[in-house]
Amino acid sequence: MIDAIRAIVGPSHVLEGADCAGYSRDWTGVYPSEPLCVVRPANTAEVAAVVRVVADAGGAIVPVGGNTGLVGGTQARGEVMLSLERMSRIRTIKPDARIAVVEAGVVLQSLHDAADAHDLIFPLTFGAKGSARIGGCLSTNAGGSNVVRYGSTRGLCLGLEVVLASGEVLDMMTELHKDNSGYDLRDLFIGAEGTLGIITAAVLKLFPKPVGYATALLSAPDLGAALKILRALQAASGGAVEAFEYMPRNFMQRLAQHRPDLTVPLKTGDCTIMVELGGLDMDAPLAETLASLMEEGLVLDATLAASEAQRSTIWAIREASAEIKFTQLPIVDTDVCVPLEKVALFEAEVQARLAELDAEATDITVAHLGDGNFHYAVYPTHDDPAHLEAVRAVIDGVTVSLGGSISAEHGVGRSQLATLARHKSPIALAVMRQIKGALDPGNVMNPGKVVP
Amino acid sequence: MIDAIRAIVGPSHVLEGADCAGYSRDWTGVYPSEPLCVVRPANTAEVAAVVRVVADAGGAIVPVGGNTGLVGGTQARGEVMLSLERMSRIRTIKPDARIAVVEAGVVLQSLHDAADAHDLIFPLTFGAKGSARIGGCLSTNAGGSNVVRYGSTRGLCLGLEVVLASGEVLDMMTELHKDNSGYDLRDLFIGAEGTLGIITAAVLKLFPKPVGYATALLSAPDLGAALKILRALQAASGGAVEAFEYMPRNFMQRLAQHRPDLTVPLKTGDCTIMVELGGLDMDAPLAETLASLMEEGLVLDATLAASEAQRSTIWAIREASAEIKFTQLPIVDTDVCVPLEKVALFEAEVQARLAELDAEATDITVAHLGDGNFHYAVYPTHDDPAHLEAVRAVIDGVTVSLGGSISAEHGVGRSQLATLARHKSPIALAVMRQIKGALDPGNVMNPGKVVP
Repeated sequence: MIDAIRAIVGPSHVLEGADCAGYSRDWTGVYPSEPLCVVRPANTAEVAAVVRVVADAGGAIVPVGGNTGLVGGTQARGEVMLSLERMSRIRTIKPDARIAVVEAGVVLQSLHDAADAHDLIFPLTFGAKGSARIGGCLSTNAGGSNVVRYGSTRGLCLGLEVVLASGEVLDMMTELHKDNSGYDLRDLFIGAEGTLGIITAAVLKLFPKPVGYATALLSAPDLGAALKILRALQAASGGAVEAFEYMPRNFMQRLAQHRPDLTVPLKTGDCTIMVELGGLDMDAPLAETLASLMEEGLVLDATLAASEAQRSTIWAIREASAEIKFTQLPIVDTDVCVPLEKVALFEAEVQARLAELDAEATDITVAHLGDGNFHYAVYPTHDDPAHLEAVRAVIDGVTVSLGGSISAEHGVGRSQLATLARHKSPIALAVMRQIKGALDPGNVMNPGKVVP
Repeated sequence: MIDAIRAIVGPSHVLEGADCAGYSRDWTGVYPSEPLCVVRPANTAEVAAVVRVVADAGGAIVPVGGNTGLVGGTQARGEVMLSLERMSRIRTIKPDARIAVVEAGVVLQSLHDAADAHDLIFPLTFGAKGSARIGGCLSTNAGGSNVVRYGSTRGLCLGLEVVLASGEVLDMMTELHKDNSGYDLRDLFIGAEGTLGIITAAVLKLFPKPVGYATALLSAPDLGAALKILRALQAASGGAVEAFEYMPRNFMQRLAQHRPDLTVPLKTGDCTIMVELGGLDMDAPLAETLASLMEEGLVLDATLAASEAQRSTIWAIREASAEIKFTQLPIVDTDVCVPLEKVALFEAEVQARLAELDAEATDITVAHLGDGNFHYAVYPTHDDPAHLEAVRAVIDGVTVSLGGSISAEHGVGRSQLATLARHKSPIALAVMRQIKGALDPGNVMNPGKVVP
């Protein structure tokens, strides 16, 4: 099989043994890979040919982009790892139609830069933007800090090209905003984490660059006050809030400890919020709204970015999250979403139940509060697997009891399989299995992920 | 089987023979129904029980809402017609979360009214809003006149409840904006026209009511000018264009003939456009932009609505479309979408090729120009089926050659089956068949629709 793959992509693009080391590492440290080999095809035809060879040989494929996922979705254990990294061409940008046609291996930051050259933006953004690739963003339906205004990756995609488990190429590379010619296959592959096929190219929406940004870091008494601040800012700006990020006391403490280089420009307390508005002349509504909320006691302190450098510092504080989080192990990290009106209840209930379970545990939460999306992360006092599972069960249990989701934006991968099996409706799981069985009967595509 | 159904829903809610007359009629006149019976369940449990009985008996079900579809998607020929009309309860509206939880039988206009009471809108709107029901809007992923701003029905839906072919109830009634806990099943059922399951309830997004509207009817020299007008208005209003509707000369002539009661408030020519902006103080940008475009010769004449009554008249002109269209038969009606930069080319090519095929044919086109979505409708000179097919093939062929879709917003139903078989990728059709086979192996759900 490996010889046949070499013949397709060329010998220098099939890595084995120690050469795979760079692909075996995993951000979280929990899901290292041991691939049979790493294959780096140059184009869609090569991807399709590789899939056919592997399928015929009864093998399996783990597709990988930037390998920045947090749920073990790219963990390979004896499978062929197929990296899209060489398919990194931005085929075209159409400024009038506000469209980018890209290959799956394009790094998110590269697309940001290319769009910027046309005074446009591709709004998806998160900490790993310098390594994450578009195919991975689409496969995980990645979220990030701008979802409150622009939606998740799904909402930014018009067209898709997918190599199926059969090795056939499903071409859905439309530029249309309206198309009802049959089932919505596009959205089925988005968020399927490579278990139904390999995304090789996409048509993406671009947006006019906001003529300016107004960015602030502020301190609020609690989550209830934070939600009032969010509503007031949405009303004052006509819905221009692009990011509304929550960093509680434990986050700010760990930040001070591990990133003393980042100067936090205000006195923070229980509830630090980073907010950004996008649009024309947003400084005035931001400043005036915060000033008026300060009189009401809903804002305790606030700093507005007066320069692009100050804006960068505020963003750097928020985006240090992934880095400072993994400075202590064991960690139970989560990616849950609850209805907005229940965020304070969620936090209070989780804290109360965790205190019963492990009184000495600490946490380092960060939340896309505008979406109700919490990355509630706990450092338990001991790493007994059953204890870690019990900690996770507390967070998941509270989430589900409040009508929330146990996977908001990171996906399922391997880490959420047990949770999904426990909390998702058996009927939904059965439908997922029917679809997986129909589209990938040989279980060639990223086996053991997403579908419990 | 019918006795068992009677036992579930009560005898008065199973109609047979002449009592089915009201359900057999079809807007287009092309797809009359002859159902075995019409069943009107009161709730989801009854829908599920009926599905189980029919599936066990080897029968089939055609779900129906307002029966206002244009593609024969609800045509029954011996199947059980299942009407959602009694499931017309708006369960709740949450103004803070901007969410409506509704049953599938809610009439679109009723939801408009209920949202209005909270100063919110449900933005989906089209001519049949007084009869169309939410379940049908979702099943066809209906479009309409506000898609340019708010997207199709798919983009307005957060949660869904579906009765599967097995009679099981798939509960996806989430209120969350972010949920990556497994495959995107919701979007698979949206737009599937009841062939994969019956939508029984939904969680829908509501939006703040625009604080005002600025509406105009204008005359432009041609489609190229119209696109420049669209861009200028989007720029001047910060993307506040909610409708941008194209009515060519033939439309306005037939309107004058069949709706002389509707006074058209300006001299129209080749290219009449109805435009509406939503937002605060939009009158000034609309008036100023149109005045400046008039100096450039891009606008020939324009009237701005100075009152709600005048706004209603302008909307009535546009929404008379469905009514005046079917005043002549035979008609070949279409629902195609092309990339925006190709709309003028599309129209010119279709006209040239139709002139070769049937020089005396006339047309009555209307387009959601902001989306590139044309309802190009032709009155051929004779009704030989092969000739009608040839006319359709011209429009579809030009559409596909320009990268367009042969079904933009009405769906596939029965009328587009042959076209889909001809123009959609065989690989995409195979995937559709795999999904249909996996989720509805007994072909219980709306057989003979959508999947060629």
